[in-house]
Amino acid sequence: MIYVTRKSHFNAAHRLHNPSKSEEWNKKTFGKCNNPNWHGHNYQLEVTVAGEADPDTGYVIDLSDLKHIINDKILDKCDHKNLNKEVPFLDGIIPTSENLVKAFFQELEDNINETAYGSSFLYSVKLFETERNIAEYCPNPRM
Amino acid sequence: MIYVTRKSHFNAAHRLHNPSKSEEWNKKTFGKCNNPNWHGHNYQLEVTVAGEADPDTGYVIDLSDLKHIINDKILDKCDHKNLNKEVPFLDGIIPTSENLVKAFFQELEDNINETAYGSSFLYSVKLFETERNIAEYCPNPRM
Amino acid sequence: MIYVTRKSHFNAAHRLHNPSKSEEWNKKTFGKCNNPNWHGHNYQLEVTVAGEADPDTGYVIDLSDLKHIINDKILDKCDHKNLNKEVPFLDGIIPTSENLVKAFFQELEDNINETAYGSSFLYSVKLFETERNIAEYCPNPRM
Amino acid sequence: MIYVTRKSHFNAAHRLHNPSKSEEWNKKTFGKCNNPNWHGHNYQLEVTVAGEADPDTGYVIDLSDLKHIINDKILDKCDHKNLNKEVPFLDGIIPTSENLVKAFFQELEDNINETAYGSSFLYSVKLFETERNIAEYCPNPRM
Amino acid sequence: MIYVTRKSHFNAAHRLHNPSKSEEWNKKTFGKCNNPNWHGHNYQLEVTVAGEADPDTGYVIDLSDLKHIINDKILDKCDHKNLNKEVPFLDGIIPTSENLVKAFFQELEDNINETAYGSSFLYSVKLFETERNIAEYCPNPRM
Amino acid sequence: MIYVTRKSHFNAAHRLHNPSKSEEWNKKTFGKCNNPNWHGHNYQLEVTVAGEADPDTGYVIDLSDLKHIINDKILDKCDHKNLNKEVPFLDGIIPTSENLVKAFFQELEDNINETAYGSSFLYSVKLFETERNIAEYCPNPRM
Repeated sequence: MIYVTRKSHFNAAHRLHNPSKSEEWNKKTFGKCNNPNWHGHNYQLEVTVAGEADPDTGYVIDLSDLKHIINDKILDKCDHKNLNKEVPFLDGIIPTSENLVKAFFQELEDNINETAYGSSFLYSVKLFETERNIAEYCPNPRM
Repeated sequence: MIYVTRKSHFNAAHRLHNPSKSEEWNKKTFGKCNNPNWHGHNYQLEVTVAGEADPDTGYVIDLSDLKHIINDKILDKCDHKNLNKEVPFLDGIIPTSENLVKAFFQELEDNINETAYGSSFLYSVKLFETERNIAEYCPNPRM
Repeated sequence: MIYVTRKSHFNAAHRLHNPSKSEEWNKKTFGKCNNPNWHGHNYQLEVTVAGEADPDTGYVIDLSDLKHIINDKILDKCDHKNLNKEVPFLDGIIPTSENLVKAFFQELEDNINETAYGSSFLYSVKLFETERNIAEYCPNPRM
Repeated sequence: MIYVTRKSHFNAAHRLHNPSKSEEWNKKTFGKCNNPNWHGHNYQLEVTVAGEADPDTGYVIDLSDLKHIINDKILDKCDHKNLNKEVPFLDGIIPTSENLVKAFFQELEDNINETAYGSSFLYSVKLFETERNIAEYCPNPRM
Repeated sequence: MIYVTRKSHFNAAHRLHNPSKSEEWNKKTFGKCNNPNWHGHNYQLEVTVAGEADPDTGYVIDLSDLKHIINDKILDKCDHKNLNKEVPFLDGIIPTSENLVKAFFQELEDNINETAYGSSFLYSVKLFETERNIAEYCPNPRM
Repeated sequence: MIYVTRKSHFNAAHRLHNPSKSEEWNKKTFGKCNNPNWHGHNYQLEVTVAGEADPDTGYVIDLSDLKHIINDKILDKCDHKNLNKEVPFLDGIIPTSENLVKAFFQELEDNINETAYGSSFLYSVKLFETERNIAEYCPNPRM
C-alpha cells in the first residue's frame, strides 16, 4: 500500500457556536473561540490517497489532478471566507477541526476515488487549525 | 550590537477596507481580502530588541519580561479578536500587515525601552500574515 | 474515527546510561549521549486522541482540557529538568525517546480517557528529540 | 508497538519519462516534469522502524546504526545524482515519489531488519519531493 | 521604513561548472556539485521591498502584484528547468546561490520599483538552495 | 554586498548562574533556567559571511569550507556537551544566548576572514535557543 499526500493552505474566519444552546453554555464551552465578532486561521490541509501505483505512470493519483480537485471542492469555497456563513456544504455544522475534516472528506471522496488509479481511494483528511492543534479523519483501517 | 528576538502567535479575523472609498474601489483594490464576512489568519509576531548585554545577567532583556510585555500590549488585545472592530489601538487603521507592524511597534516601544538593559531599545517588529506574506517595521538604522 | 493532536514543547537535560552495566559498555553503546556532564534537547511532544466528536460541541476532546492535562502530567514535571534525576515517574528508566513515549503514555492515559468524549481514548504519544530523531508509542491498532 | 523515525535529506535531478510510450504521451502525462533537460529536488526521507525496545539500551534500533544504513544504501547512491541515469537500483524505474519509496524500502529492508532489536522491522519509508507532495510506502498493517 | 517580503518556491536542475577552467579544476573546486549528469533543488525565494505604505491602501506594494512580477520574471523561467541551459538571463553565469540572487535582483528591479508605492524599492533577494545553505543580495544600505 | 548563510545544529546542557551573586539572586533572576541539575536545548546556529563573489567560482566562501570551520570551532566543542563545564572558550561566561553568539563570533572570525574570498568577512552569528528565543551578534554595520 502506497500513501500519497498533497498539502494545501487556506485562510478563513470562523466562530464556535451551537445555536441550539444558550449564550451562557456557548461562552462557557467555547471560551474565546465563541467571540461573536469572529476570529480566523491559516488552515493547512493534507489530503492522503492510498492504493497502488499505475505501472505506466508510476502515479497512485496524478498530484496535479488531486490539486485541482482540492481547489474546486475545498479551497475555492473556503479560502478568505467565513466558514459559518458562506460555505454551503458546512451549513449547520459547528466548524471545529473535527467537524471540518469529516465534511471535507465527504466533499472530496467521490471525485478522488474516480480519479485515482485502479482501486486507490481517499484515505484521510488532516487539518492544522494552528501549528499545535490538528485533526484527522481516517475512516478506513490501514490494510 | 546584539539583537534578541522573541516569537509569538495569535489568531484573528480581519478585512481590508477603506471606509473613505467606494465599495467598487475597495473590491477592486483588495479583492477577496475585502470580503465583508471577514477572513482570518494565524499571525506569527517577531519582536527584536537591540543593545548590549547586562554583564550581571548576560541579558539584553529578560525574555520572560519581553514575553509579558508582548502578552499585555499585543496578544491579550488581538488574540481571537476582530482586528477591525475590537482593538482600540487599531481604530481607524486598515489592518494590512504594513500598518499592523507600525502600530504594534508604537504600542510596544515605551515599555520595552524602559525594561531592556542600559540603552538597549526596540529594534523591529515583524509579522507573518501567512508563511509567504511578511512585513517588518524597523525605523532605526543598523548601527 | 477522528484523530485529534496537540503539540507541546519542553526543554530538558538527560544522559543515556544503564547503571547495571559497566562504564565501558555504556561508553561503547551510547557514545556521546553517555556524557556524564549531561546534554539536552528541545523536545516536541505530540499527543493524539482518537474517537468520535461530541455532537453538542464538535469536540473529540476539548483541546484546552487536553493542554491542561499535558501541562500537569508532563510539562510541569519535565520542563527545564534533568530527566534522569528529577522526574519521579521516570525513576529507573533510561531516558531514550522510546522509553519516554511509553512512560508519557502511561502517565497521560487515565486522565485523557476520562476527559475525552464517549469512548474516545489516548491513541499515541510522539516525541521529537531532535528534528531528525522521533519516537512514537501507539499500543492500539487503527480501527 | 513503538515506532522510531530518522529523517534525512538529499538533492537530486530527475525526469518523469516512460521510454515505452511516445513523446506525445509523455508530454501530455507528465507535463513540465517530463523536461528532457531535467529538474531536481531537495528530497526529505523519513525511515520508520517498528517494534519493541531492547531493555538493556532502551533502543528499538540504535539511530546511529540506522543513520549509517540509510547513508550507505540510499544517500551515498542518490545525493547530488541523476535518479534516472546514475542509481543502479533505480534502473528501469520511472522516478515518481511512489516508485522511489517502494524501491528505497526494498533496498533498506534486509539490513534494517537484521540490525533492529528482536523482531523489530522496517515499517515505512516516506519521501517529501517538495513540502507539498509526499509519498509513503507502508506494506505491513499496524499491529 | 517598512519591509514587505513575499516567499515563493521553484524546483530546478543545475550544475556548478566554469567552462573556462579545466575538468580537474572543476572537479576539485565544486566536488559533487560538478556532476555532469546534474542534480537539483527545491529553491525557496524571498523578495523584499522597502519603503512607505500608501495611506489609501496600507500597502508598500500590493502582494498580489509582487507575486505576479516574481512569477513572470523568475518562476515561469526557472521552475522545472535546467538553470545552466534553459534560462536566457542566466546565460554564462555559474549558478551558485550567490550569482543567482544577483541575477534575480537585476531581473526584478525595474518592474518592482515601478509598481511599488512612491519611492519604495526592491531591497533584497534571498535564496534558500537547501534549508541550510542561503544567499542574499542586498545592494542598498538600511536607511 | 552578498550575504551567505550556513545553518547548523547542536545539542547541549546548560544552566544560567552567576557565581559572583547569591543563590537567592540567581534563583530570582534566572528562575527555572537556574536549575542546578541542568536543562538543555537543540541549538540552531546560523553563521553569515558578507562580501563579493569570486568570479572564478561564484562563491563568497565555499560553503563546504565554512561547514568545516563551524564544525571544528563550534560543533565539535559544544555538541552533546555541558556549556558551563566542558567548553574551554566559554569559561567564565554565563551561557545566555547573547553571550554565546558573541563568544562564537570571536571563535570563528579569524578562520572565516582568512578563508572567504577577497575582503569578505564574518558578518553575523545567530543562535536559536528554542524556536521562539533567538539572539544575533552583528558587530559591523550593513554597508
